[in-house]
Amino acid sequence: MFIDTLIEKIQEKNNPSIIGLDPKLEYVPEHIKETEFKEYGVSLKAAAEAILKFNRSIIDATYDIVPAVKLQLAYYEMYGLEGLRVFNATAKYAREKGLLVIADGKRNDIGSTAEAYSAAYLGRTPLDGEISEEAFKIDALTVNPYLGEDGIKPFLNDCRKHGKGIFVLVKTSNRSSGQIQDILTSTGKSMYEIVAELVTDWGKNLKGKYGYSSVGAVVGATYPNQAKILRRILKDTYLLVPGYGVQGGTARDVAHSFNCDGLGAIVNASRSIMCAYQSDMWKTTYDEAHFADASRAEAIRMRDDINSAIGKG
Amino acid sequence: MFIDTLIEKIQEKNNPSIIGLDPKLEYVPEHIKETEFKEYGVSLKAAAEAILKFNRSIIDATYDIVPAVKLQLAYYEMYGLEGLRVFNATAKYAREKGLLVIADGKRNDIGSTAEAYSAAYLGRTPLDGEISEEAFKIDALTVNPYLGEDGIKPFLNDCRKHGKGIFVLVKTSNRSSGQIQDILTSTGKSMYEIVAELVTDWGKNLKGKYGYSSVGAVVGATYPNQAKILRRILKDTYLLVPGYGVQGGTARDVAHSFNCDGLGAIVNASRSIMCAYQSDMWKTTYDEAHFADASRAEAIRMRDDINSAIGKG
Repeated sequence: MFIDTLIEKIQEKNNPSIIGLDPKLEYVPEHIKETEFKEYGVSLKAAAEAILKFNRSIIDATYDIVPAVKLQLAYYEMYGLEGLRVFNATAKYAREKGLLVIADGKRNDIGSTAEAYSAAYLGRTPLDGEISEEAFKIDALTVNPYLGEDGIKPFLNDCRKHGKGIFVLVKTSNRSSGQIQDILTSTGKSMYEIVAELVTDWGKNLKGKYGYSSVGAVVGATYPNQAKILRRILKDTYLLVPGYGVQGGTARDVAHSFNCDGLGAIVNASRSIMCAYQSDMWKTTYDEAHFADASRAEAIRMRDDINSAIGKG
Repeated sequence: MFIDTLIEKIQEKNNPSIIGLDPKLEYVPEHIKETEFKEYGVSLKAAAEAILKFNRSIIDATYDIVPAVKLQLAYYEMYGLEGLRVFNATAKYAREKGLLVIADGKRNDIGSTAEAYSAAYLGRTPLDGEISEEAFKIDALTVNPYLGEDGIKPFLNDCRKHGKGIFVLVKTSNRSSGQIQDILTSTGKSMYEIVAELVTDWGKNLKGKYGYSSVGAVVGATYPNQAKILRRILKDTYLLVPGYGVQGGTARDVAHSFNCDGLGAIVNASRSIMCAYQSDMWKTTYDEAHFADASRAEAIRMRDDINSAIGKG
């Protein structure tokens, strides 16, 4: 079951933070890009190959300290078919290294179509008679709730059947998230509170042995006050918390997303880990050739920063 | 500009209906599947090849009567990398036949990531210096508004720069769409009305020579009363109307989505066109070998049905 495995990996590594592999080509060190441009010309293929090398190096440097990686699909779709090939290869590599893989795709559609998305990422694609195949091999997917329950149910079915997980968008980390998510409804509740109540309902039959559900919620680190409210509504829900680091969320901010048991949340950082070698904090210690060591150093710093804020340091 | 081209194609073909190419393998006639399974074994590759042949036949049989096709990305992602290759090949084939291609991906994310989605589907992916490439070549994309304006802006920029379009989800055709979209807010407006107002704002600088904006809205055929309200709010917005046919929307239902000038909406049908050869209406006239002729007959029937309901018959 996804949520149990996640919790066990968090405990084994004493780390509730995960690494976002959202690799824009501009994050990739020059020497890697140059090699691939020489080999394949300046092309989507070369870009994708460079990104794969970059991803593998970061995974090699961090797999022993983090429980999971989050791959943002947009950054792979951006490089077309070659990008999606590298999404697949990165996911495979990460899983071989014992990491859970969360695909951040924010997929959503009406029931019959949500079935297709769910087959693609969590279930299996039917081919002929009893024969089916896995299209993309990952462990969990982020989904958007705007279409309501029948757009979510197919994912719940596959979570149950295949031991996978989902994280439903509740309160996102971006500046304009309030434009829809914070709207006050006629019942006196905000939209994000209503969505949170739906999420607890959707997750109630998918609880694992630690009491948490495989149906999680996305709650941005940049809104600590809303996180406090949501932590109360979403008692048995694991929160996926983006927005730590470059987006402005601090360890103190994300601490509100955890329960007293030190569980209940995973915190994602993407740019601050991937581009650690360019950061003021690490660039004097690590040159570009040692970018992966800088990522490791930043991943350890982040782990300790968050553990200390939640009293696990 | 996307919206002007769309309107001209609608007028040229006297047809505001479009075909959804959402090809589950089970829709594909047996003889096509068998050939591909023989060639490639029972595999995602064979499934994708069968789907491509199926799509091409339907395009060949209908390109002279419809203005556009809508490709539901979920049904391609379901077949993995092979499926996405066929998404690309289908889009290319349709555009060569003079059709506009709308990708129904309902993409959404925070600003920086929405930029990546927009580059993937509407803009160009930067590679090195001034060199960039198109990852997927299509004309418009559906997007989800749950993250608010900063998740939409990157798409608006690429619509402006590259003459593309988007359709923002407002009121979807599925049964549980009301769970979030119909919620009454403290201002007395429903959520879908608030989203509709945002859509008119987002589209105001992207109007073409016919007064309509390249920022459209998705409004399901299955909710004619909401469509009436939305038609009034979304005066200069083109509505993409799913839900006609198998989902239960009739020509009278979709008529509410049009303006008095007979413009303002495109109506999509997927299963009723793709699976026309299996339908009670056409299966006695066309056997499985002539599935594409059945699709053409149903596309003509749909065109005339809608034109007659909007006084253009």
